Amino acid sequence: MAESDAPDRPTPPPETYEAIMQATYRAFCKHGYADLTTREIAEEFAKSRSLLHYHYDTKQELIVALLEYLLESHPAKAATDEIADPDERLELFIDRGLFGPENAPFDFWDFHTALLELRLHAHRNDAYREQLDRTIGLITDLLAATIREGIETGCFRDVDPEETAQFLYDAIDAARIRKITLGHDDAPRRTRRAIETFVLPTLRAADDDR
Amino acid sequence: MAESDAPDRPTPPPETYEAIMQATYRAFCKHGYADLTTREIAEEFAKSRSLLHYHYDTKQELIVALLEYLLESHPAKAATDEIADPDERLELFIDRGLFGPENAPFDFWDFHTALLELRLHAHRNDAYREQLDRTIGLITDLLAATIREGIETGCFRDVDPEETAQFLYDAIDAARIRKITLGHDDAPRRTRRAIETFVLPTLRAADDDR
Repeated sequence: MAESDAPDRPTPPPETYEAIMQATYRAFCKHGYADLTTREIAEEFAKSRSLLHYHYDTKQELIVALLEYLLESHPAKAATDEIADPDERLELFIDRGLFGPENAPFDFWDFHTALLELRLHAHRNDAYREQLDRTIGLITDLLAATIREGIETGCFRDVDPEETAQFLYDAIDAARIRKITLGHDDAPRRTRRAIETFVLPTLRAADDDR
Repeated sequence: MAESDAPDRPTPPPETYEAIMQATYRAFCKHGYADLTTREIAEEFAKSRSLLHYHYDTKQELIVALLEYLLESHPAKAATDEIADPDERLELFIDRGLFGPENAPFDFWDFHTALLELRLHAHRNDAYREQLDRTIGLITDLLAATIREGIETGCFRDVDPEETAQFLYDAIDAARIRKITLGHDDAPRRTRRAIETFVLPTLRAADDDR
């Protein structure tokens, strides 16, 4: 499979794009990254295989497109619209990151297992690394914006929003990785408690100052 | 390569064991896990290839033995002997975890890249998962013992030592993984600062109570 940049191809019409991305999504969760081929993606695609190849030629193009597609409808984005209170929104970010969004259209853990495989390949693949960086960047930006909002409205202490967001993201990510790679099923729950012990009280210390 | 349990083999004499483990170590850091074969390990071994195969038959046996070998001389163990003060020892644990031990006999980042590859395989391999669990368990136990000691001597607050140790380990691990997979070279330094903002002050809050 070529690792070159995608050539100029016709953008698929919205319905076809949606169907291709959903097929890629299902195949990615089912087979993981390393064992995935365009054939497995085509098998999840109800329309013709040639239509798939008309728009996307390689596994890499499909996976990069999938990550971008998932960014558009990321649950962290939805949380920003749903919840006005920064503290409450932060709690929702943490819970969704650790335990998965409610009504996930896929198995949260299958998806994160495949994503971790992809991350290892990103180590030597610029296209994957840039796209994964965009994904993690969007999530930490939303977290940082929430923390900044909390600082401005006086419900959080004056911490570094970016650093705090990244620290929270990392804590959540590490718990997921331990659950996936070592089978530590209680990792998300215990990390939730550690965040309650160390991060949230420090953030909320403004309680005493108000 | 067989994934079966190691058959009963003669334990190598100490000098041979040391030479085989060092060869495995070098090959693991140089080639990573996925691309590693016993041939590459044999190439790093100055003595005969048949001697290597006399003691270890498969890549899996060699890697499991390597993890056990590295446990014996883990820098976290050395820190316990070197530094009596729990607070100072905790700082050393954190720095060694984030930036690597001083005078590492290998490239710290090559090693952790290979280890991350191995962890992904541990997902479906009991022998690797158990051995990696032992490694992480030893490190978090040493961290927890240090925190417990600090609580007993009154320099740390009465937190849950195991949960705190795991949280610190996870934060360090996530920073390493981001540096490796996404090239975030400032991750260890920024995580160090976040630990100073969120974890250490909460741990040390006993300052006011003494």
